[in-house]
Amino acid sequence: MENNCGHQMYELIKELFPFCRSITGNGVRKTLAVIKKFLPGLTIHEIPTGTECFDWTIPNEWNIKDAYVEDENGRRVIDFNKDNLHVLNYSIPVNKTVSFEELDQHLYSRPDMPDAIPYVTSYYSPRWGFCLSHNEREKLGKVNYRVVIDTTLEPGSLTYADLIIPGEQKEEVLLSTYVCHPSMANNELSGPAVTTFLGKWLSSQKNRYTYRIVIVPEMIGAIAYLSKHLATMKERTVAGFQLTCVGDNRAYSFVPSRKGGTLADRVAKHELDYRIKEYIKYSFLDRGSDERQYCSPGVDLPFVSITRTKYGKYREYHTSLDNLSVVSPDGLQGALDVHCNCIRILENNAIYKVTTLCEPQLGKRGLRSTIGALDFPMQARQLSNFIAYCDGTMDLISIAETIGVYVLDLLPLVSQLREEGLIGKVG
Amino acid sequence: MENNCGHQMYELIKELFPFCRSITGNGVRKTLAVIKKFLPGLTIHEIPTGTECFDWTIPNEWNIKDAYVEDENGRRVIDFNKDNLHVLNYSIPVNKTVSFEELDQHLYSRPDMPDAIPYVTSYYSPRWGFCLSHNEREKLGKVNYRVVIDTTLEPGSLTYADLIIPGEQKEEVLLSTYVCHPSMANNELSGPAVTTFLGKWLSSQKNRYTYRIVIVPEMIGAIAYLSKHLATMKERTVAGFQLTCVGDNRAYSFVPSRKGGTLADRVAKHELDYRIKEYIKYSFLDRGSDERQYCSPGVDLPFVSITRTKYGKYREYHTSLDNLSVVSPDGLQGALDVHCNCIRILENNAIYKVTTLCEPQLGKRGLRSTIGALDFPMQARQLSNFIAYCDGTMDLISIAETIGVYVLDLLPLVSQLREEGLIGKVG
Amino acid sequence: MENNCGHQMYELIKELFPFCRSITGNGVRKTLAVIKKFLPGLTIHEIPTGTECFDWTIPNEWNIKDAYVEDENGRRVIDFNKDNLHVLNYSIPVNKTVSFEELDQHLYSRPDMPDAIPYVTSYYSPRWGFCLSHNEREKLGKVNYRVVIDTTLEPGSLTYADLIIPGEQKEEVLLSTYVCHPSMANNELSGPAVTTFLGKWLSSQKNRYTYRIVIVPEMIGAIAYLSKHLATMKERTVAGFQLTCVGDNRAYSFVPSRKGGTLADRVAKHELDYRIKEYIKYSFLDRGSDERQYCSPGVDLPFVSITRTKYGKYREYHTSLDNLSVVSPDGLQGALDVHCNCIRILENNAIYKVTTLCEPQLGKRGLRSTIGALDFPMQARQLSNFIAYCDGTMDLISIAETIGVYVLDLLPLVSQLREEGLIGKVG
Repeated sequence: MENNCGHQMYELIKELFPFCRSITGNGVRKTLAVIKKFLPGLTIHEIPTGTECFDWTIPNEWNIKDAYVEDENGRRVIDFNKDNLHVLNYSIPVNKTVSFEELDQHLYSRPDMPDAIPYVTSYYSPRWGFCLSHNEREKLGKVNYRVVIDTTLEPGSLTYADLIIPGEQKEEVLLSTYVCHPSMANNELSGPAVTTFLGKWLSSQKNRYTYRIVIVPEMIGAIAYLSKHLATMKERTVAGFQLTCVGDNRAYSFVPSRKGGTLADRVAKHELDYRIKEYIKYSFLDRGSDERQYCSPGVDLPFVSITRTKYGKYREYHTSLDNLSVVSPDGLQGALDVHCNCIRILENNAIYKVTTLCEPQLGKRGLRSTIGALDFPMQARQLSNFIAYCDGTMDLISIAETIGVYVLDLLPLVSQLREEGLIGKVG
Repeated sequence: MENNCGHQMYELIKELFPFCRSITGNGVRKTLAVIKKFLPGLTIHEIPTGTECFDWTIPNEWNIKDAYVEDENGRRVIDFNKDNLHVLNYSIPVNKTVSFEELDQHLYSRPDMPDAIPYVTSYYSPRWGFCLSHNEREKLGKVNYRVVIDTTLEPGSLTYADLIIPGEQKEEVLLSTYVCHPSMANNELSGPAVTTFLGKWLSSQKNRYTYRIVIVPEMIGAIAYLSKHLATMKERTVAGFQLTCVGDNRAYSFVPSRKGGTLADRVAKHELDYRIKEYIKYSFLDRGSDERQYCSPGVDLPFVSITRTKYGKYREYHTSLDNLSVVSPDGLQGALDVHCNCIRILENNAIYKVTTLCEPQLGKRGLRSTIGALDFPMQARQLSNFIAYCDGTMDLISIAETIGVYVLDLLPLVSQLREEGLIGKVG
Repeated sequence: MENNCGHQMYELIKELFPFCRSITGNGVRKTLAVIKKFLPGLTIHEIPTGTECFDWTIPNEWNIKDAYVEDENGRRVIDFNKDNLHVLNYSIPVNKTVSFEELDQHLYSRPDMPDAIPYVTSYYSPRWGFCLSHNEREKLGKVNYRVVIDTTLEPGSLTYADLIIPGEQKEEVLLSTYVCHPSMANNELSGPAVTTFLGKWLSSQKNRYTYRIVIVPEMIGAIAYLSKHLATMKERTVAGFQLTCVGDNRAYSFVPSRKGGTLADRVAKHELDYRIKEYIKYSFLDRGSDERQYCSPGVDLPFVSITRTKYGKYREYHTSLDNLSVVSPDGLQGALDVHCNCIRILENNAIYKVTTLCEPQLGKRGLRSTIGALDFPMQARQLSNFIAYCDGTMDLISIAETIGVYVLDLLPLVSQLREEGLIGKVG
């Protein structure tokens, strides 16, 4: 069922696109309510304003009704209703007439991308402001303007959601994504869309591992979540994945964990090296999403990020150009496939050991031709190589990489050998 | 005495070439009887049909008197007496007249090498068959043929030999080779020939290590041998070498142990890196001889293979073209030299430690010029470097590689320093 | 005060240049007396002839008044007063008339550098001899010559000096240089000059580590020094540096410790990799100064050498051409700077750990812009990267190299974070 979901994921993104999200407020609540239709088990949580979370405090809740700049003729020259990026995210309320000079100090635009409305925030410092394309800004006359930002910033709560899908084992795989950006597609909605369909797929089958799906506002949400669940997550998490920028179809990219080498790193790199083959390898120094929290010193979860084109590395990033044309059904499906495969690898990875000393006699079990010395087909060679390294110390990923095979291609062979009693699981 | 044996080894190969060997039967017995003339201490063993050896069972013994295909005119179109490769090795007996179509299903040839008779076996599945060159096959008329294979397949035994040459220490060096192929030169007889002369050389001198020479049918013979001697061999073996394809003069090649890094790997690579310099480095994935058993999980002997051109990597391999023209006295001598040197390295390798703190005064011992500051010849530099790393943690091979010298070239210097009491053996 | 000392170091070299030093005798005493004017705390020691130092014995003391070769006309064709390299260092006394043929056996010249007087010694074997340029040698007529070497070789002592500059901790940093060559500049006096000014700088400030400055005749002096102080030095030394060939301005070079990876290696390589960037990396096999003793087996101090152009690697080395024109104020200052920075790195290197879980909130402390999502300047990125790796296991050098920053550039940031209580020192 995880195949051919590209269009459904794209439709979900279209539905969620117009909402004005921020790190708190009704935009997040509306978004999570839509996702819950796909994942009925999703639990939605509220953390009150003022709650301390490690070094941070949950801020006042922000909600917005309207925002605009009106010229002396009553013409709206900037209008939140046209694009919710027009308002500085988390703006304090304002309603007054200002000179051009004063207004200008509250405007944000990007001369390097004159057609794009930039995405700008001021969560923790009270400011008001508007974002607009540099071309529009240059058209503003030096007259007085009426500025209206109809927002509330009041004690309330931060909203997030999680879903635990129990497996045979209590050890967990973590899938984390964020909801906090207003109308942007790749760097906001692709993550929740792919995570939602991963959740659906996982809910539809028996799993070895327990899956913890976390949907939070980026940064403060992950910090808040960790402040509540750190001990459990440190004890149980075997691998974790950040789902962000998984919607375009231009590249695959990898951000490792802080020190690398965890099971999450090994699984992700194997999938990318052996199936995807061409992808961009970033360093942890290139990180930028919630691996900043999940991999922070003392938290240290085995946590990586596989993206399509990574945040900060595509032209449309953090502007109004990151719209529905940046993401595509194929882009989303590619990301879903990679994550499904990582999960399949995790589910199947184990340490086996051959039950015989010296090579087993494969011919008498029909696992190898009984005509000898003539040729040695690739399949027989792979079987022989697998057995040679199946020594009770190497997991399937290690063996696969030692013998140069994609690990999921080994699974039929593992089944055959288990059926024949030639290998047994270790530990 | 190990020098200039090339011609003697070649003569031995010529003597053994005509015998029709298989994994059991009189061909092996005749071969071992000839070798025993060179190595009187060689013990010949028989393991009865039906004996269980790990996952394997010793099969019925196979012997052959004659085999041919006769056309309607009584002309032998395929004749075992011309080349013993013509019969499918381990063929069941047959004696009947068959149509061309039926015969054709029992023929083996290689269209890619139309002049060569391929080598084909069917040890563990009852079949009859003939091998012939593809050119000859294409000449066969669509008439009836009389097929005669005069073989016996009856309870008997598997024959192998070993020779233990005791040394000062009970720790062993293993030299293993195989006898089981009919008339082929490089991939059959070069191994026994070089092993025989290594055995002669080792028998003629005092050795530090005990040497275990094993001559067995490939695969089943090694498995049978290990099933009898595994505990002793695991306890005592410090290094082992497979002798196969050591007769041509086209290349040197190396197959490491399963995980690499054993003393056998280190010695072989040092000899090849520092004396031979140009050679082909294979992976354990390229293995194909009895390292498959000696390095299998749970057996795990420190075991490598230094070949000339490796099995499977030369055109004549496993065909009638692997004849006496493929091997040469020079080719055999080169392989003998490499293995003698590996043994010299093993015999002399040890950990030493300087007996002084700071550099010793070499000038007063005549080990260095007493004129200073003028020049610093390579020999003095080597001595100084050797002493610098002679710290009681590195064996001679490690020191040699650290200072960039072939280890056997260090031995005179080690003797000098020991005589002067400037270094002492550790452990 | 360590800046702009180039000219003062050059003047010190000019003052010391004319003295005829050897491994013992008044040349060394005069040299150390001059240095003591800069480093009043310097202690000058004498070790009597005959004292056993590990494998060595302090030789007779050598002093020289005059030396010359006079032709039949009373003309001095070789004259020690013109250049003290003319006498074979440690020559026994001689005063006789000899034939050209006999004289010729006692002459040393270098045909490959016909203008240069070579530097030659015979400390431990009684010889007399003269060194001269090959051009001058070829002018000598085949007549009789009067040879006079007015030296004494008598029981006396070997002279050396040391200076301990106490720090907060008793753990020591070792700075070692040598005095034993006659009139040569880069390969003799650059080392003492830079060491003297390092000593002045260290004496003028509070230090974390204790500094041990050692000025000895090369080889025998270092051996003698170690024979007296080995236990203390092994217990306390955290890093050591040989100061030799630190006066020319042509290159920077690095000789690692015997096995590499010590704190001294890490500090020196960091300074060279991140500040100097282009330098020559030698192996320990290229060593040649007192690292031969400090890094010898059983001594094993964490000891490296950062030179400008290394001994043996410049044309003028060990000849009269290694004069005041080879060294320069800039060359000396460059070496002083590198060593001062290595010391700064050592003094400041420590292991810190963040005091929060998850990322701390930098915005509220003024350490990061509170406008979000717009850009992420390098400084903020560095701070974030530093915190990400500040996990209580990596020292500042490790973190700096992981995040690609010169470690001394991290110090302001470390101060800020300590002031904010966001990081604490570990251990």
